[in-house]
Amino acid sequence: MKAKNKIIPKTLPGFMELQPNEQILFNQMKEKIKLSYEKFGFLPIDTPILELSEVLLAKAGGETEKQIYRFQKGDTDLSMRFDLTVPLAKYVTKNYNDLQFPFRRYQIGKVYRGERAQKGRFREFYQADIDIIGDGKLDIINDAEIPSIIYNTFKELGFSNFTIRINNRKILNGLYKSLDLEKESTDIMRIIDKLEKIGQENVKQMLLEIGINEDKITKILEFISITGSNDEKINTLKALGIKDELFIEGVEELEKVIKYIRLFEVPETNFMVDLTIARGLDYYTGTVYETFLNDYRQIGSVCSGGRYDNLAEYYTDKPLPGVGISIGLTRLFDQLNDLQAIKAEKKSISDVLVISMSDNIQECLPVANAFRTAGINTQIYMNNKKIQAKFKYADKLKIPFVAIIGENEVKNNTVSLKNMITGEQVEVSINEAINILKK
Amino acid sequence: MKAKNKIIPKTLPGFMELQPNEQILFNQMKEKIKLSYEKFGFLPIDTPILELSEVLLAKAGGETEKQIYRFQKGDTDLSMRFDLTVPLAKYVTKNYNDLQFPFRRYQIGKVYRGERAQKGRFREFYQADIDIIGDGKLDIINDAEIPSIIYNTFKELGFSNFTIRINNRKILNGLYKSLDLEKESTDIMRIIDKLEKIGQENVKQMLLEIGINEDKITKILEFISITGSNDEKINTLKALGIKDELFIEGVEELEKVIKYIRLFEVPETNFMVDLTIARGLDYYTGTVYETFLNDYRQIGSVCSGGRYDNLAEYYTDKPLPGVGISIGLTRLFDQLNDLQAIKAEKKSISDVLVISMSDNIQECLPVANAFRTAGINTQIYMNNKKIQAKFKYADKLKIPFVAIIGENEVKNNTVSLKNMITGEQVEVSINEAINILKK
Repeated sequence: MKAKNKIIPKTLPGFMELQPNEQILFNQMKEKIKLSYEKFGFLPIDTPILELSEVLLAKAGGETEKQIYRFQKGDTDLSMRFDLTVPLAKYVTKNYNDLQFPFRRYQIGKVYRGERAQKGRFREFYQADIDIIGDGKLDIINDAEIPSIIYNTFKELGFSNFTIRINNRKILNGLYKSLDLEKESTDIMRIIDKLEKIGQENVKQMLLEIGINEDKITKILEFISITGSNDEKINTLKALGIKDELFIEGVEELEKVIKYIRLFEVPETNFMVDLTIARGLDYYTGTVYETFLNDYRQIGSVCSGGRYDNLAEYYTDKPLPGVGISIGLTRLFDQLNDLQAIKAEKKSISDVLVISMSDNIQECLPVANAFRTAGINTQIYMNNKKIQAKFKYADKLKIPFVAIIGENEVKNNTVSLKNMITGEQVEVSINEAINILKK
Repeated sequence: MKAKNKIIPKTLPGFMELQPNEQILFNQMKEKIKLSYEKFGFLPIDTPILELSEVLLAKAGGETEKQIYRFQKGDTDLSMRFDLTVPLAKYVTKNYNDLQFPFRRYQIGKVYRGERAQKGRFREFYQADIDIIGDGKLDIINDAEIPSIIYNTFKELGFSNFTIRINNRKILNGLYKSLDLEKESTDIMRIIDKLEKIGQENVKQMLLEIGINEDKITKILEFISITGSNDEKINTLKALGIKDELFIEGVEELEKVIKYIRLFEVPETNFMVDLTIARGLDYYTGTVYETFLNDYRQIGSVCSGGRYDNLAEYYTDKPLPGVGISIGLTRLFDQLNDLQAIKAEKKSISDVLVISMSDNIQECLPVANAFRTAGINTQIYMNNKKIQAKFKYADKLKIPFVAIIGENEVKNNTVSLKNMITGEQVEVSINEAINILKK
């Protein structure tokens, strides 16, 4: 045979592809998020990754549109989804008559953005989203349940030291309206968003540069530097004497949200009013959230979202208000894994590796059958290799136990069970082995 | 405001998008398959949906290539994966030095084929695959473990009456070699594949039409009509006196596989030697499998696969023999769901809906918090609606219990728990309610 040129088996940059041991860890994270969402009664949906461009890009534009993986197949103009919110809007509108409202759904799936590839940026990544969609209206108490879901989810993921920062866009918009800065509000919020990074002096400088006058800047800075406890902040907001209706409504909503969050038993240390967060620039209309792991602030917000008035205005005239959050799971995993901030509960899929002392693999089968019937994840080593190679295999895969079958074990109808962590080895009956493995 | 033209929120034909209640059922099926694969010690991997066309299409051609969703983004020629085997080949070659062999992996994910859309054909569908990859060689006992995994998986899915049909390509290839029909073998196998549909007479006619002589046809028909128990079939094969080495090797392998399948405790009623199955035409080189649900034969094979000599010959010279199976989960679900052949174990995500008799939703929170802390999936009805609407909501979502909080319950620190199936209602303490809900 002639030697053939081989293709190099590359994976595209920006596409995460994990080793099995990392995949186990990733899957545990994904599963915990799923279970947490289900604990709060969210229903699963699974929308296609490919959609008609017309449907998916109904609302998009600018930067988003440039990043889309969009192409023609036959006569059809297709795009890969770039988030899970637009597909939700499509889904809810399409199935409006069959859904029960409030419609609570979660979706955990891959989305696609053809961004410039760089460390920590992914072109294919998982989002883990929940949204609560109302038919016409949606009580403010829903905005307070969301932080309790964030709280539960990150606790389940093994974190305690995190803060859910909460604000209300109506407060921001009302403030800018009262200062006659509505037109400039987008730019102002973009600048304020950088407060933590660049400091107050630079914020002031940038506000001056876009033509805001000193008086108004003073008011803005006074507003964003409101300090104190959550209640103190709310009282200070009220005491500002701003008469704008939207502002007053925003403060009232924020006050209710804070009150209800406490009734949802989220500890005071895990949430705070933060008047500087704005969370994107046009989508959200009320409560907004960002979540920070305080020991890993460099990661940025790990879970964000908020309230919006109209989920699906590009598809329907029906008002569908909602509130939701999203976890960018791929990036979060990648960063936490680099920081060694997450640990697998179970490092191995198999609970036990069954090996033969000789090459008589078939002697392993009755034991493996019994283990599997008892619900124990069991692998049989089915290669003829030296005994050391078999143990090394278990070790590399971090399988916690090896069940050894030799002449004696076959004769005695027993199994020698070796704990790969402690090194301890005992010869026990198959039933006893099952009991040990089940622990 | 001017009325705006709305976009119609369509989903592409051939892309399955389920209602939440169906999604719950689908997810349960997917989860059971996953747990079954894990019980046998397979490791998870998750490869990208998008790959370089050069990598993904290294081997493709003809019909497959036409169906690919392939496009250019910038300078890059991209394709969406059309199966999970090529990505596995890429993965194993790329990570060869870091993997432990035999490498047992499962992957459950969506694949894409731009086929003509028709009922029961999907363009986006889940495959649930396992493969065992050897480094250089892979013992035949692996071929016998696969049916035990199929057996376990379909039992877990709730089926008993199914048959795993097993053959060996070496027997077929050896037979055609011995008849000097190697060149025609592909055509012959394609015709024989139709045996069950068109009957023996038509098979004979078609074989005549492609120019096979009567003598050879007689031999072929004699071969494919071998009947009896598994052991009788094997004995008859041996007694044919065919001296071809490949044929003899195939019979020996089949005999071993049958022997070991029994040791894996697969009941005799759930597997059989079937000399007519060939399973695709060039990929498999040894044992092949097809699985049929006997009560739903119209669905065709629900789980197929086999042994191959070289997983990754387009990427590497290293021989990587393997054996694996695939379940086409989307199609399987779609058909079984239509036939009402699958039932959800749990029809609802929420175990309980907490409602307020009045509109004082906040009275529900302590109870819901307690339920959730106890690990019970709990939804609170957070809309101000009439009490009937609240019960209807639980009913529609098939939530099995409603926890009612009224004046009395608040005063007594109790909850009225209504079983939505029996209609029974009891006023109990929150702890008692938890005990009931946990059952």
